[in-house]
Amino acid sequence: MGNLYIGLVHYPVLNRMGEIVAAALTGLDTSDIARSARTYEVRKYYLIIPLESQREIATRIKRYWTNTDVDRGNTFRGEALKLMEIVATLEESMQDIVEYEGREPLMVGTSARQREKEQISYQELRARIEQSKDPVYILFGTGWGLAEPLIERLDYMLPPLFGPGDYNHLSVRAAVAIILDRLRGRQ
Amino acid sequence: MGNLYIGLVHYPVLNRMGEIVAAALTGLDTSDIARSARTYEVRKYYLIIPLESQREIATRIKRYWTNTDVDRGNTFRGEALKLMEIVATLEESMQDIVEYEGREPLMVGTSARQREKEQISYQELRARIEQSKDPVYILFGTGWGLAEPLIERLDYMLPPLFGPGDYNHLSVRAAVAIILDRLRGRQ
Repeated sequence: MGNLYIGLVHYPVLNRMGEIVAAALTGLDTSDIARSARTYEVRKYYLIIPLESQREIATRIKRYWTNTDVDRGNTFRGEALKLMEIVATLEESMQDIVEYEGREPLMVGTSARQREKEQISYQELRARIEQSKDPVYILFGTGWGLAEPLIERLDYMLPPLFGPGDYNHLSVRAAVAIILDRLRGRQ
Repeated sequence: MGNLYIGLVHYPVLNRMGEIVAAALTGLDTSDIARSARTYEVRKYYLIIPLESQREIATRIKRYWTNTDVDRGNTFRGEALKLMEIVATLEESMQDIVEYEGREPLMVGTSARQREKEQISYQELRARIEQSKDPVYILFGTGWGLAEPLIERLDYMLPPLFGPGDYNHLSVRAAVAIILDRLRGRQ
């Protein structure tokens, strides 16, 4: 089984006008996504944030919950947040993966819309993770989604998530949870 | 296809000591869960909160996003929060469902742990929703999960969610998203 990595991208992402921006940190993106990552045995969860002041906030949150000198009454949260690595750029996270794995991961993007990129189905990606030792890195966009320059660098996109209808404005926290369950959930 | 309802229970739930308490409102439980509910075509999402002051906060959040006189730049969120009904008790939500459906819904609970109650698998519940017109009401606990007196009233429990390992401390927002995807996701 190959190691799975996820990245929550705050830059470059789109705003609702379709412009490329840096999105602000949402507090619950740290622990909610870390808990999903831990549950589905993601090896590392990269919080990718260009703004130093926001990385500092995330670092404080991580330090608060992972400080084992103090009993916060919730060791599960600390155990999850240990997986969270706060980095400034996608490149930094890639270097970290390559250093550990000795090779580049398969890079897979996610989006609520169809994007111009070859798709890989959930079943196929699940099978690849189970059958190969190649690392897989899945990227999620905050704001209104991953921007084009980043999508160009990916190997594949996963298809947008849908229920029975056409509305699919899930929170990124929900999308991460669902996608990890589709790829690694006990069935 | 039967109508699907979900309820986010703030009382009676457990705290980490296993005592029965009323949990506090988490702001993102309103819009995150409403957006998942809208995506998976849940008919109503009941926010069940006994404390009046907390219901008022939730009501203000709902009013803010569903007020169509003002352009919040995000009509999707308002569309989702329209599904959210803020009630004081489980009984109130049951009355509302019975009034609309003319019958009681199948009541199904969720938990991160095995509980003493007959289980229904995700596949079987998915098939029942697709093949029967009977309404189904799925309950999620905040805090450390649904308390026993409530579980006694249910028809079934869904099995706990797991990834490859034994850690399964998902946020309730993540659990709602995953369970709705398993029951209604486009495959």
